[in-house]
Amino acid sequence: QGCDVDDPSSSSDTTGTKKIKLFGYLQPQFDYNFTDGDQNNTFKFRRARIGVRGDIYEDFSYYFMLEASPFIGNQSDVYLMDVFITYHADNWARISLGSYKQPFSLDLATPCFALTTIERAIVVDQLVTPQRDFGIGIFGGNKYNRLNYAVAIMNGSGIGGFKPLDNNTKKDIVGRATYRLTDFLTVGGSFRYGFPLLNDNESDRTTYGFEFLAELNKLKIQGEYIHDTGAYLTAAGGGCGGLDPVSLDGLTSDGAYIMAAYSVNEKFQPVFKWEYFDQNVDVSDIPGIYQERMTFGFNYFFNKMYRLQINYFANIETVTNVDNDQIAAQIQVKF
Amino acid sequence: QGCDVDDPSSSSDTTGTKKIKLFGYLQPQFDYNFTDGDQNNTFKFRRARIGVRGDIYEDFSYYFMLEASPFIGNQSDVYLMDVFITYHADNWARISLGSYKQPFSLDLATPCFALTTIERAIVVDQLVTPQRDFGIGIFGGNKYNRLNYAVAIMNGSGIGGFKPLDNNTKKDIVGRATYRLTDFLTVGGSFRYGFPLLNDNESDRTTYGFEFLAELNKLKIQGEYIHDTGAYLTAAGGGCGGLDPVSLDGLTSDGAYIMAAYSVNEKFQPVFKWEYFDQNVDVSDIPGIYQERMTFGFNYFFNKMYRLQINYFANIETVTNVDNDQIAAQIQVKF
Amino acid sequence: QGCDVDDPSSSSDTTGTKKIKLFGYLQPQFDYNFTDGDQNNTFKFRRARIGVRGDIYEDFSYYFMLEASPFIGNQSDVYLMDVFITYHADNWARISLGSYKQPFSLDLATPCFALTTIERAIVVDQLVTPQRDFGIGIFGGNKYNRLNYAVAIMNGSGIGGFKPLDNNTKKDIVGRATYRLTDFLTVGGSFRYGFPLLNDNESDRTTYGFEFLAELNKLKIQGEYIHDTGAYLTAAGGGCGGLDPVSLDGLTSDGAYIMAAYSVNEKFQPVFKWEYFDQNVDVSDIPGIYQERMTFGFNYFFNKMYRLQINYFANIETVTNVDNDQIAAQIQVKF
Repeated sequence: QGCDVDDPSSSSDTTGTKKIKLFGYLQPQFDYNFTDGDQNNTFKFRRARIGVRGDIYEDFSYYFMLEASPFIGNQSDVYLMDVFITYHADNWARISLGSYKQPFSLDLATPCFALTTIERAIVVDQLVTPQRDFGIGIFGGNKYNRLNYAVAIMNGSGIGGFKPLDNNTKKDIVGRATYRLTDFLTVGGSFRYGFPLLNDNESDRTTYGFEFLAELNKLKIQGEYIHDTGAYLTAAGGGCGGLDPVSLDGLTSDGAYIMAAYSVNEKFQPVFKWEYFDQNVDVSDIPGIYQERMTFGFNYFFNKMYRLQINYFANIETVTNVDNDQIAAQIQVKF
Repeated sequence: QGCDVDDPSSSSDTTGTKKIKLFGYLQPQFDYNFTDGDQNNTFKFRRARIGVRGDIYEDFSYYFMLEASPFIGNQSDVYLMDVFITYHADNWARISLGSYKQPFSLDLATPCFALTTIERAIVVDQLVTPQRDFGIGIFGGNKYNRLNYAVAIMNGSGIGGFKPLDNNTKKDIVGRATYRLTDFLTVGGSFRYGFPLLNDNESDRTTYGFEFLAELNKLKIQGEYIHDTGAYLTAAGGGCGGLDPVSLDGLTSDGAYIMAAYSVNEKFQPVFKWEYFDQNVDVSDIPGIYQERMTFGFNYFFNKMYRLQINYFANIETVTNVDNDQIAAQIQVKF
Repeated sequence: QGCDVDDPSSSSDTTGTKKIKLFGYLQPQFDYNFTDGDQNNTFKFRRARIGVRGDIYEDFSYYFMLEASPFIGNQSDVYLMDVFITYHADNWARISLGSYKQPFSLDLATPCFALTTIERAIVVDQLVTPQRDFGIGIFGGNKYNRLNYAVAIMNGSGIGGFKPLDNNTKKDIVGRATYRLTDFLTVGGSFRYGFPLLNDNESDRTTYGFEFLAELNKLKIQGEYIHDTGAYLTAAGGGCGGLDPVSLDGLTSDGAYIMAAYSVNEKFQPVFKWEYFDQNVDVSDIPGIYQERMTFGFNYFFNKMYRLQINYFANIETVTNVDNDQIAAQIQVKF
């Protein structure tokens, strides 16, 4: 009949070795745009994820998460997101096969439920593409080690789309390393070399980035710079529901952000972020090609599970000011 | 890597404060149509839902349910259905943000697994549209209070479709209140004012309804009348997999039903429903515009989890009789 | 609001009668094709399934499994796979209503996580179509009985596609019986008679098959022959993500396989399979119409939950040799 077994009692979530952890989080949100004329506004879901994962069992573990938000992806339906099996050979060699985030950039590596602002940096959403991919990777280090590293070989065509088989015979290589210089300062760098275009084994692309994270008591400051040149698959861009992808094929692009957050107390954390993204570094700063944005906001942690995030996005025009600011309010539960 | 955390043990379904409840139900069904010539018949799923929810934790709770039946919605894939976070300020003020049913009509408010007949009333499926929406709402009262009320501000464009962002800048307001007059009689009313059309902030729509519920020992009788006028988005109509939506834009429509069920014993409950739906009250009762239906059937509760429902739908033609009756048999498990 | 209940405590996964079992498995995989010129290779998921099921409760049980692999099905989204409610009248009469595998062929009946090779036999993927369907069936016998049987009446149009209502008024009948002749030898046969074409109550199709399974200590040998003639719905073919369906409408096709596996020890099990599939038995063995394949490989069971499968597929051409061999490596977790 189904993928059944003769003896249903053999699979159980009660035995010690097979403990299944159910987890997920929800981010319902309200957006309001301060535009000329009618001002768009909507209730929506930023993310709605549910998954299971298993503890390490004889050096193996698994992770299986689905995305249910109809506002992410090409379709409005539930789809497979981060799903992988990991072999824990050693603290310096955890090998994962499946689909997961490319090991590139601190902002991308931050779990979606732990982001300090509602949106990731524009440069991360537009240049670290695809953000998720199928591949094999090796991960080393933990939070107690000064050094952490990750290297992955991936399809390069992302997890979305219609039967997303790899569409060229080349693979992409992506890596990131961080080093804790002092108790409060960690620096890092990321690198990516790949072949993004469909049915094209020639056109390549090179991306690199630098990052720092300073944690001084209640103050956290982090920043990144990312540079990208070469071929670009627009369909893979735009990040996780954040932005419409732009066409950057053949251009050299860069961008950076700096973000500061201060934990006034356990519950209240104001945050400020300044960022820019330049689609084409070879031309002067044309509006629409070069963009700058400030984000003002705060996090309010009701308790361990529930959080309120309110962000004001001030888009800065270098020539003529345009009414295109936005406010977003999000409630998150993490279970 | 994924939306992972450094310390996997931090998220667990075993600690008291984070208890996750898994729940859902299945409704496999067989339909047979008594039509002229070939008589369509099919095995299908009426609904197939699975979800998780969390107990109230420091005044907050969450609810996360997916629909997996390929016979509902535009696609045959799993999608997000009722998903919301609730802040329990007070018994008279529970505030929910997310996607859920519009607070309109007793029949719609009845959970899908507790419906007395297989189908909701035609008037509820055709006039309370969209049945589910994204929004924010405030809910008051419980089953021990005489008064219960709910008011919600919602997008007005439903939960289905391709990236279902709100497509006009106006919001819809929906509300319902019920009052228990005596121990056995509860009456109520619902109201809705909205802007259903895409990219249209002018065309409005007004819907209102009245309901009663009488529970006399083993007998339950309920009835509703719903009236709707103005603009209408056909794509949002048709209820939850029950009916093909009809085009009612610019028309004034109404309908009503009365349903009686008698619990012979704990297991067996026969039911009868008479209903009508008039797509256009401004013309005489033209076949196809005005429809009447009787439903005969019963519920058989094998036990707390499993239920059998058999319904015979007798469509009544006012002019010429047409062979269009239907029988449906459904098994339900609720877990 | 949602499909909620007044008293959330009434549905719980902690009470004995309502114990919900969460289960599933993941099969991330890497494929490499030994073709002329560029050699296609990809990381992907073979299957990614998650579900819940319930123990027998007052003679009833349920099973609810979703498929999340974007490499199976028409869409890249999660969809309903094996979902059914079973009434356990007797060991000789278990009645299931819902969607599940057609009771035809030993290879198809083998749960996907227990297959000895990565792929099912070509003949099973191409001739037992649709592999899954909506219907009602009766199942008898268990692993201690010599005789086991299953008969199902099914829609005949499969579980995939857009609102997969049955599209003709005829139903298909499918059945299988096996008999254990001796302690080590079981033989069986399958039969199917149906009407596969859309809106066509005339064009029929007949399929039959024979199977044997010999288990001699650490050696397991099994084989099947399947024969099919008549109308054929190409859209329903191709098996579970394994093969592109071929057009067999109006043709008589057959095929067979024989497979031997030897468990060297608890962890290591080499396997060899030889198979052929003939799309049209009425013409001589034309390349592309007649195909032969050998599969060499092994299973390595790290432990009860994790397994590695490596298979080399050697496609045998009868006239001119073509470079079209393939190697596939798969890690499986079953939880």
